[in-house]
Amino acid sequence: MTREECLALDAADPLAAFRAEFTLPEGVVYLDGNSLGALPRRTSARVTQLIDEEWGQGLIRSWNTAGWYDLPRGLGDRLAPLVGASPGEVVVCDSTSVNLFKTLAAALRLRPGRKVVVADPDSFPTDLYVTEGVGGLFDGVRRRLAGPDDLSGVLDDEVAVVLLSHVDYRTGRLYDMAAVTEQVHRHGALMIWDVCHSVGALPLRFGDCDVDFAVGCTYKYLNGGPGSPAFVYAAERHHAADQPLTGWFGHTDPFAFDVGYVAAPGAGRFLVGTPPMLSLAGLQASLDLWSTVDLAALRAKSLALTGLFIELTEGLDLVTPRQPGRRGSQVSFRHPSGYQVVQALIERGVIGDFRTPDIMRFGFAPLYVGFCDVWDAAQQLADVLASGSWQQDRFSQRSAVT
Amino acid sequence: MTREECLALDAADPLAAFRAEFTLPEGVVYLDGNSLGALPRRTSARVTQLIDEEWGQGLIRSWNTAGWYDLPRGLGDRLAPLVGASPGEVVVCDSTSVNLFKTLAAALRLRPGRKVVVADPDSFPTDLYVTEGVGGLFDGVRRRLAGPDDLSGVLDDEVAVVLLSHVDYRTGRLYDMAAVTEQVHRHGALMIWDVCHSVGALPLRFGDCDVDFAVGCTYKYLNGGPGSPAFVYAAERHHAADQPLTGWFGHTDPFAFDVGYVAAPGAGRFLVGTPPMLSLAGLQASLDLWSTVDLAALRAKSLALTGLFIELTEGLDLVTPRQPGRRGSQVSFRHPSGYQVVQALIERGVIGDFRTPDIMRFGFAPLYVGFCDVWDAAQQLADVLASGSWQQDRFSQRSAVT
Repeated sequence: MTREECLALDAADPLAAFRAEFTLPEGVVYLDGNSLGALPRRTSARVTQLIDEEWGQGLIRSWNTAGWYDLPRGLGDRLAPLVGASPGEVVVCDSTSVNLFKTLAAALRLRPGRKVVVADPDSFPTDLYVTEGVGGLFDGVRRRLAGPDDLSGVLDDEVAVVLLSHVDYRTGRLYDMAAVTEQVHRHGALMIWDVCHSVGALPLRFGDCDVDFAVGCTYKYLNGGPGSPAFVYAAERHHAADQPLTGWFGHTDPFAFDVGYVAAPGAGRFLVGTPPMLSLAGLQASLDLWSTVDLAALRAKSLALTGLFIELTEGLDLVTPRQPGRRGSQVSFRHPSGYQVVQALIERGVIGDFRTPDIMRFGFAPLYVGFCDVWDAAQQLADVLASGSWQQDRFSQRSAVT
Repeated sequence: MTREECLALDAADPLAAFRAEFTLPEGVVYLDGNSLGALPRRTSARVTQLIDEEWGQGLIRSWNTAGWYDLPRGLGDRLAPLVGASPGEVVVCDSTSVNLFKTLAAALRLRPGRKVVVADPDSFPTDLYVTEGVGGLFDGVRRRLAGPDDLSGVLDDEVAVVLLSHVDYRTGRLYDMAAVTEQVHRHGALMIWDVCHSVGALPLRFGDCDVDFAVGCTYKYLNGGPGSPAFVYAAERHHAADQPLTGWFGHTDPFAFDVGYVAAPGAGRFLVGTPPMLSLAGLQASLDLWSTVDLAALRAKSLALTGLFIELTEGLDLVTPRQPGRRGSQVSFRHPSGYQVVQALIERGVIGDFRTPDIMRFGFAPLYVGFCDVWDAAQQLADVLASGSWQQDRFSQRSAVT
């Protein structure tokens, strides 16, 4: 493979036109869209419209006239095709952590006789922290730690719910949603998928896979903006489920100001408080863009990009599966000085990230990363490693956020 | 009092210059800043800077370089002078409802032998819904309903925590924070204040009043923007308190990616997930403005405005206390057709709101409401009532949000 061949691949890319829909800094190859997605060009105008027209001129009236009140459900319905859900099964609200709390608690209440929550010790830490927090509120509930490969050793009729990540945030490994869900269901337990690292990276099929609940992030591949609200999927059969974060936006008729709580129908019962509209408007803009994406083409390009990067970095300590069907949209390597290497790359305009203890992580968002980007990143990585330039002192200075 | 005298009061108003800091539509008297505060002129530029520069150009790096990571604590410290808190005692995050959940759960764990939560049946409904939701998670915990006037009948050594609103959202009645907190403490219970309807309306003194926890809204008098994140106050003596919504932003070192949860120091342990930065940027802009406000002058003007409105509407069924020290910054009346009257007023450009079953509510945000506005609103209200124009059919059509 040559750079010229990469140019040809970019020219033939059916998703190439999406690149112009994003703002990216000059001279940057952005391979961290799996942590914070790039800025859609349309976002600023939409948020400015919300601020200047809807808030500034419409004021309180915009809850009705600008459709603010309906947005958590409306954006959920907009997300539904990306995750294989039906209308009414997805709402946008709160953070991933808060939504994990709600779904875990709901699942425990749906399996009252069972006292075990299974979580993956390799999952993103907030999943572990939330299972700790929820567990402490349910009498006798305890946790078993096991990843998707080790489920057979922990599944039994004590397990109420299993929480797993669809794509491992460090290795990029993709798990088989249908098979794992089926395995969990065979033991009578419920399945919650954390799809933070797969939504917008590949097509999801919650309905077909018989998923019970799922929680996902909108600021990574979905480009909603830093900290944009997360989403909750609740399969229709669980729309009578009981979750304990009962706030007025989850009430069936908030403006009746009833003294007693009556949960809203559908996934709406997972709403809690007044939603942060500026951040929702950012997500609204990016989901407008996402509604035009062919997810099969997205997945095909993602696998081509990650496959090419794996090919061009041969010889490094790859931790991402080579088999296409077993990886998400990122490629990771172990390196004992991974932090410094990543910092040196960032200085050269190739932005990936580092995850403790020794993982260098590169995400490939197919809407704005091209084949020449992959080529250039691989060249820079090879050059940083060959030159030893990462050994300079300034690359060892840790920042608050790594 | 004449309109000329109102003009003179506006001319002499030491806060008059703040009016130019806000955008308001032509021809509108906005008396609903207690529901959604008006738009500060500086907000749009700040949010656009966050989107175009920090997100668009800085990308993931902005968590460090633009100070995003520190903002939930930084904005808390910026809020502290408005509520009489010390640095480290306030964080900005999540919604009011979610924060009530956290503080109620923390309080119950601080009083493990006690099984009663006291809540006010007249509080904003979300406070009641959240006490229901929390109660269901703690074995044997039950609720007693009582307002601030009726506490003596319900306080005993079974009460773990009392949750009350500082200003009643319907009547605008202000309660004595110091006296009520002291009464609750005398029974060994903890005190949580919901200050959604008082923060930014009058100076608060959490430290002086020995408040345990407080939760407040930033999108009403504080002008953070629709749904801007709420805040949590935790008195320093409760900084080892245990709250069950344990997410990675509340971890003492989130980027260590530890498997076990270790709560952050200070009020930081009330943080949960990744914060919605666009909405936080809106709040950052408005708190920049609020840092220049003289709170004694604010309170003096607020009482003058509400006092004048009460005087000019004499004869209506006032439910707000006439005694200045006993009201917040709103004036409310009962009217059997309150909904229609409010709609008719809105059509004339006087925006108040209606709260079920029969409350017409008018809020007076001293930074952008003047004495002539009060005069004009009172005239319009009198005219609508005298003319009976509210009886037209179109004013009966209920909207989703009232």
